[in-house]
Amino acid sequence: MELGDALVQLGKFIGAGLAMGIGAIGPGVGEGNIGAKAMEAMARQPELIGTLTTRMLLAMAVTESTGLYSLVIAFMILLVG
Amino acid sequence: MELGDALVQLGKFIGAGLAMGIGAIGPGVGEGNIGAKAMEAMARQPELIGTLTTRMLLAMAVTESTGLYSLVIAFMILLVG
Amino acid sequence: MELGDALVQLGKFIGAGLAMGIGAIGPGVGEGNIGAKAMEAMARQPELIGTLTTRMLLAMAVTESTGLYSLVIAFMILLVG
Amino acid sequence: MELGDALVQLGKFIGAGLAMGIGAIGPGVGEGNIGAKAMEAMARQPELIGTLTTRMLLAMAVTESTGLYSLVIAFMILLVG
Amino acid sequence: MELGDALVQLGKFIGAGLAMGIGAIGPGVGEGNIGAKAMEAMARQPELIGTLTTRMLLAMAVTESTGLYSLVIAFMILLVG
Amino acid sequence: MELGDALVQLGKFIGAGLAMGIGAIGPGVGEGNIGAKAMEAMARQPELIGTLTTRMLLAMAVTESTGLYSLVIAFMILLVG
Amino acid sequence: MELGDALVQLGKFIGAGLAMGIGAIGPGVGEGNIGAKAMEAMARQPELIGTLTTRMLLAMAVTESTGLYSLVIAFMILLVG
Amino acid sequence: MELGDALVQLGKFIGAGLAMGIGAIGPGVGEGNIGAKAMEAMARQPELIGTLTTRMLLAMAVTESTGLYSLVIAFMILLVG
Amino acid sequence: MELGDALVQLGKFIGAGLAMGIGAIGPGVGEGNIGAKAMEAMARQPELIGTLTTRMLLAMAVTESTGLYSLVIAFMILLVG
Amino acid sequence: MELGDALVQLGKFIGAGLAMGIGAIGPGVGEGNIGAKAMEAMARQPELIGTLTTRMLLAMAVTESTGLYSLVIAFMILLVG
Amino acid sequence: MELGDALVQLGKFIGAGLAMGIGAIGPGVGEGNIGAKAMEAMARQPELIGTLTTRMLLAMAVTESTGLYSLVIAFMILLVG
Amino acid sequence: MELGDALVQLGKFIGAGLAMGIGAIGPGVGEGNIGAKAMEAMARQPELIGTLTTRMLLAMAVTESTGLYSLVIAFMILLVG
Amino acid sequence: MELGDALVQLGKFIGAGLAMGIGAIGPGVGEGNIGAKAMEAMARQPELIGTLTTRMLLAMAVTESTGLYSLVIAFMILLVG
Amino acid sequence: MELGDALVQLGKFIGAGLAMGIGAIGPGVGEGNIGAKAMEAMARQPELIGTLTTRMLLAMAVTESTGLYSLVIAFMILLVG
Repeated sequence: MELGDALVQLGKFIGAGLAMGIGAIGPGVGEGNIGAKAMEAMARQPELIGTLTTRMLLAMAVTESTGLYSLVIAFMILLVG
Repeated sequence: MELGDALVQLGKFIGAGLAMGIGAIGPGVGEGNIGAKAMEAMARQPELIGTLTTRMLLAMAVTESTGLYSLVIAFMILLVG
Repeated sequence: MELGDALVQLGKFIGAGLAMGIGAIGPGVGEGNIGAKAMEAMARQPELIGTLTTRMLLAMAVTESTGLYSLVIAFMILLVG
Repeated sequence: MELGDALVQLGKFIGAGLAMGIGAIGPGVGEGNIGAKAMEAMARQPELIGTLTTRMLLAMAVTESTGLYSLVIAFMILLVG
Repeated sequence: MELGDALVQLGKFIGAGLAMGIGAIGPGVGEGNIGAKAMEAMARQPELIGTLTTRMLLAMAVTESTGLYSLVIAFMILLVG
Repeated sequence: MELGDALVQLGKFIGAGLAMGIGAIGPGVGEGNIGAKAMEAMARQPELIGTLTTRMLLAMAVTESTGLYSLVIAFMILLVG
Repeated sequence: MELGDALVQLGKFIGAGLAMGIGAIGPGVGEGNIGAKAMEAMARQPELIGTLTTRMLLAMAVTESTGLYSLVIAFMILLVG
Repeated sequence: MELGDALVQLGKFIGAGLAMGIGAIGPGVGEGNIGAKAMEAMARQPELIGTLTTRMLLAMAVTESTGLYSLVIAFMILLVG
Repeated sequence: MELGDALVQLGKFIGAGLAMGIGAIGPGVGEGNIGAKAMEAMARQPELIGTLTTRMLLAMAVTESTGLYSLVIAFMILLVG
Repeated sequence: MELGDALVQLGKFIGAGLAMGIGAIGPGVGEGNIGAKAMEAMARQPELIGTLTTRMLLAMAVTESTGLYSLVIAFMILLVG
Repeated sequence: MELGDALVQLGKFIGAGLAMGIGAIGPGVGEGNIGAKAMEAMARQPELIGTLTTRMLLAMAVTESTGLYSLVIAFMILLVG
Repeated sequence: MELGDALVQLGKFIGAGLAMGIGAIGPGVGEGNIGAKAMEAMARQPELIGTLTTRMLLAMAVTESTGLYSLVIAFMILLVG
Repeated sequence: MELGDALVQLGKFIGAGLAMGIGAIGPGVGEGNIGAKAMEAMARQPELIGTLTTRMLLAMAVTESTGLYSLVIAFMILLVG
Repeated sequence: MELGDALVQLGKFIGAGLAMGIGAIGPGVGEGNIGAKAMEAMARQPELIGTLTTRMLLAMAVTESTGLYSLVIAFMILLVG
């Protein structure tokens, strides 16, 4: 392979790796925080477990969004870009 | 590919990766914080769960904005720039 | 493309990526902090939810400003600079 | 092997390593947080251990998702890209 | 473009990106802290909400100042320098 | 050995080292957190020690997963890639 | 432009960017801390709001000083140096 | 020794060093956390010291696993790879 | 300009930027801490506000000193060195 | 000495230094945590000092293990590798 | 200027900048901590304000010492070295 | 001296410096933690000061071990390697 | 100046700057911690101010020692080495 | 001076600077922690000040050891190595 094309490939792999790797820190820590407090809340209000579970999933889904953006960008860098 | 064009591609992939990867930390941690405290608030005031859910989503939507800016910039770097 | 022009493009993509990526940390964490405390305050004073929501949005809007500056600088680097 | 192909391989290995390595921090810390609070909640409400276990696994499964995205991207970088 | 001019442009974009990107961390976190405590204070003293809102905005305006300096320096680097 | 092949080997070793090294931080800290809180919970509810031990192991097993992904990726980088 | 002059310009832009960018972290976080505690103090002693506001501004003005030094150095690097 | 072989050796040593060095942070901190809380638990429930000691060792053994993976990868990099 | 002189200028700008930028973190955070605790103290002892204000300014003045040293060194690097 | 052999030696020294240096952080902090809590536990239950001392040493011995792995890897890099 | 002399100057400016910049973090944060606790102590024991002020200045003077060492080293690097 | 031998020496000095420098962080912080809690424990149980002192020294001796390993590795890098 | 001598000078300035700059963080933060707690202790036991002041200075003097070592090493690097 | 000898000197200065600079962080922070808690303990048990002072110095002496190792290694790098 030519040096030019090789550099493009190298940049593609490093870029996608950084996008997904670093991009997984925020949602991972955030969702862990939500889940941890939900456990606590469920133990304090056992009759609300059903409602709290759906709210926890709702909150996690929104927090997941930046992780999904990272996935999308990493895919685009690998396949399209 | 020529070396010049290759460097442009390489910069494009690394730049987009950094923009989205690092840009996902803040909103991820922030929304996790909002969601965690919302779980706690719901367990303390069960009759307010409906109102608190909409407020939580409102707060998360605003916090999400910088994550969306990162997505926009990453797209622009990849497709337009 | 010539090497000179290529370096300019490379700098443009990395610069815009850093500006928006790092620039999203502060507002993301800050707004998450505001939203989290607002959830807590609403659960403590349910009759103030309307007032607290507008104040929360006001506080978030000011905090968002440095995120917007980053967006502006990233756009300028990509399109004008 | 030619220098060009070698650089592509080198980028592939470093990129996949970074994607999975850094991508394991967030979910690891987050799930640990969920599990820790679940232990606490179970000790406070022993009669809820069954329900809390399933909720804990549910919360962990969502948090795991960004770790799985990292795995997917690392695989793609290694095998497909 | 000549290599010399290209390096100047490259430095311009990276410099402006760093100035605004890193410069947005401090004010973002600081204003978030002010806003969070203001939410708490409003819930404790509802009759002071009007006064506290103006004080919160005043405190945020001063904190915003270093963010504005970063914006000014980033503009100067991009347009004048 | 040729320079090209050498660079591939070098990338392989550094990549696998980073993948496993950094990838061990998250699960290590997370499982430590789970175990610490489980000790606390067992001392508070001695009659639940059997149940809490199995739950602790369950929670740790899930948290371990991203560590295992890192191991898998490191192996693939070393042996297959 | 000659390579020598280009390197001077490049150093000028990176130097000014680092001076103002990093220099905005300290005052931003510090003033945010002052403002946050002032909100709390005002809610505890409403009759002192006027006095506390002037003290808060006084404390912030002193804290702002290192941010201003950074601005001065960044200007000197850009225009005079 | 040829430059190519030398680079392979260099990568081998740095890679193994990073894998084991960074890989020792997580389990070290995590097991310290487990042990610290176990000390606390033993002082609170002296009659459970035997049971708590085995549980502590069990929890530490699982946490140790990512440290062992790092050891395995470091060995493979040094001897096999 | 000659390459030698250019490198001197480049070092001058980067050095002064680092000296002032990093040097503003400590005093900024420290003075913010002093100011924050002074707000708290004033709200607890309103009759001491005059005395506490002068003490706060005294403590801040001493803390400012390392910020001033950074300013002096940055000036010396830019103008004299 | 030939350049190739020299690079191997250089990599050996840096690799061993990193393995042992970074590898000493985790066990050091972890064992310090165990010891600190053991002091606290001994002061609360003086009649258990003998038992707690052996448990503390047991917990520290397990935590030390990753430090020993680092020592082993550093030795292997220096002497065998 | 010759390249050799230029490198010496460059090293001089970067070295002095790092010495003073990083060297200002410790004393700044430390003195801020002393001052903050002194504010608190003064509000609790108003009759001791005179004595506490001199002790605070004494403690700050000792803490300042490492900042002064940094200043001395930075001067020596710039003027003598 | 030949370039090859020089690189070996350079690697030796940097490697030993990193091994001992970074390797001193963990034991230093850990032993400080043990000592701090021992002070607290002695003030709470004055009649146990003798026993607590020997336990504190025992705990510190074990924590010191990774610091000693770093010393050994640094010596080996400097003298033997 | 010759390139060789220039590199020695450059290394001398950077090395001394790092030794003193980074070496000032630990003692600065540590002494600030001692001083802060001493302020608190003096406000709680006013009759012990004399004794506590000498103990505070004693504790600070020992903590200062690593700062002095850094000064000594920086001097040796600049003047003797 | 020859390039080879110059590189050895450069490595010597940077290595010694890093060894002592980074090596001063741990003991500085650790001893500060011991001293701070000793202040607190003395204010709580004034009749134990003599005993606590000797214990504090004993604990600090052990913590100082890694700082001394760093000094020894830095000296060896500068004078012997």
